[in-house]
Amino acid sequence: MTAQQLYEIILKKRSFLCVGLDTETAKIPEHLLKSDDPVFEFNRRIIDATAEYAVAFKPNVAFYECNGTRGWESLARTISYIKENHPDCFVIADAKRGDIGNTSKMYARAFFDDLNADAVTVAPYMGEDSVSPFLSYDGKWVILLALTSNKGADDFQYHAEDGERLFEKVLRISQKWGSSDNMMYVVGATRAEMLKEVRAIAPDHFLLVPGIGAQGGSLSEVVRYGMNSRCGLLVNSSRAIIFADSSENFDKIAAEKAREVQQEMAGYLG
Amino acid sequence: MTAQQLYEIILKKRSFLCVGLDTETAKIPEHLLKSDDPVFEFNRRIIDATAEYAVAFKPNVAFYECNGTRGWESLARTISYIKENHPDCFVIADAKRGDIGNTSKMYARAFFDDLNADAVTVAPYMGEDSVSPFLSYDGKWVILLALTSNKGADDFQYHAEDGERLFEKVLRISQKWGSSDNMMYVVGATRAEMLKEVRAIAPDHFLLVPGIGAQGGSLSEVVRYGMNSRCGLLVNSSRAIIFADSSENFDKIAAEKAREVQQEMAGYLG
Repeated sequence: MTAQQLYEIILKKRSFLCVGLDTETAKIPEHLLKSDDPVFEFNRRIIDATAEYAVAFKPNVAFYECNGTRGWESLARTISYIKENHPDCFVIADAKRGDIGNTSKMYARAFFDDLNADAVTVAPYMGEDSVSPFLSYDGKWVILLALTSNKGADDFQYHAEDGERLFEKVLRISQKWGSSDNMMYVVGATRAEMLKEVRAIAPDHFLLVPGIGAQGGSLSEVVRYGMNSRCGLLVNSSRAIIFADSSENFDKIAAEKAREVQQEMAGYLG
Repeated sequence: MTAQQLYEIILKKRSFLCVGLDTETAKIPEHLLKSDDPVFEFNRRIIDATAEYAVAFKPNVAFYECNGTRGWESLARTISYIKENHPDCFVIADAKRGDIGNTSKMYARAFFDDLNADAVTVAPYMGEDSVSPFLSYDGKWVILLALTSNKGADDFQYHAEDGERLFEKVLRISQKWGSSDNMMYVVGATRAEMLKEVRAIAPDHFLLVPGIGAQGGSLSEVVRYGMNSRCGLLVNSSRAIIFADSSENFDKIAAEKAREVQQEMAGYLG
């Protein structure tokens, strides 16, 4: 998928919502727990209920890996299900991988060849050769961590050399590795005002913005500082949508929550 | 396992070798490919052949994930096999994970509760709350990336604020999160002279040193600059040992290669 194709889906759905599938087994509604694969059953219903309002789904790989082999199977089934039933949804494997070149190549195989995700989140610490193997796949994307939404972002991401902070250097240097058609950046919504500074360095790239909802970020602030002429935003909400309710109607309530966000987004898309 | 217990194993085996299980399916000797789980069969023979000369094994998770659910199964079987048959070997899941707190908690479950590894490699970019969930397990270890062995290390790890480079800041700040009994650092052997600077900041911690062998690092240089009074080193070799030979004798040749390194190490241990 190119940036233009993603933008067309955003215009069609009038949404730039990404639904985060942080499917923690302990939070799955009880009536689903007797199925063979409760994580997949939960995801399937969330996906079917919210796909109308979302342009992307983002399974966070940690929530699958913690269930071992069965968890990896749930992840694979989830991505296949989206690809087969909702081909107008972008799939982000939120994996935060990154290793020396010949190892990152194996991670790229895992997420692009084996799981068929459209994008994978990658950590920048190890530099170019840890990222570039992911960029050699046509139509696939790297979403590189720049400025994250958590408290620990303060520990190293603001470390500044000659006034240039680490997250700014990541944005500047990594633009030489890919293009705005195969690279996005993670910028947390809990620091929405920082999006202005991010846009000064990366005006054209899509940004994946976590931190709306449970983490407290404001959508209007994200739009104010981060939207560009092709939208340029994928705003993620996980817990506030998928775990809004734990009754048998959880999927309908999730759809309502997703629709509320989509309606607000439609307003911002003009 | 505590640092003292690890040191005792090092003294007993007269080795600080870590054998990296970067088990790429395409490199497995042909006669093993007809088994149900060639990756595990290969690992089992390598482990049995080299355990006498090694204090640690380090499966690199990427090489398992790229085989999907079956790969995860091979990884789980490999770690179980080491734990059951070679309890005097330390198991490092080389995963380079790290995410916001509630997500890192899930990764910690995956590697410590589900897979039962002794240690997991973690990337520092997201700061304290991305690392600390791994530190809450008694007897388990975080091995934090500091200065890596690849070319891309130059991109960000030397970014300096007031003369303090990023890898130095990682070493300094992260020492407040854990202790030398639950935290080690990755420092690449391809930059052995840098170990002196690392030791100025972290004199007591164990260092996991990749880059010996295929990546070209020198063991004598690593020892010269990095060894401390409790050894303080785990030196990894992957491809140069496990893929030294592709015949039916691959395990015997791997054992010879591991023994060569162990003999050199015994000399340095005095």
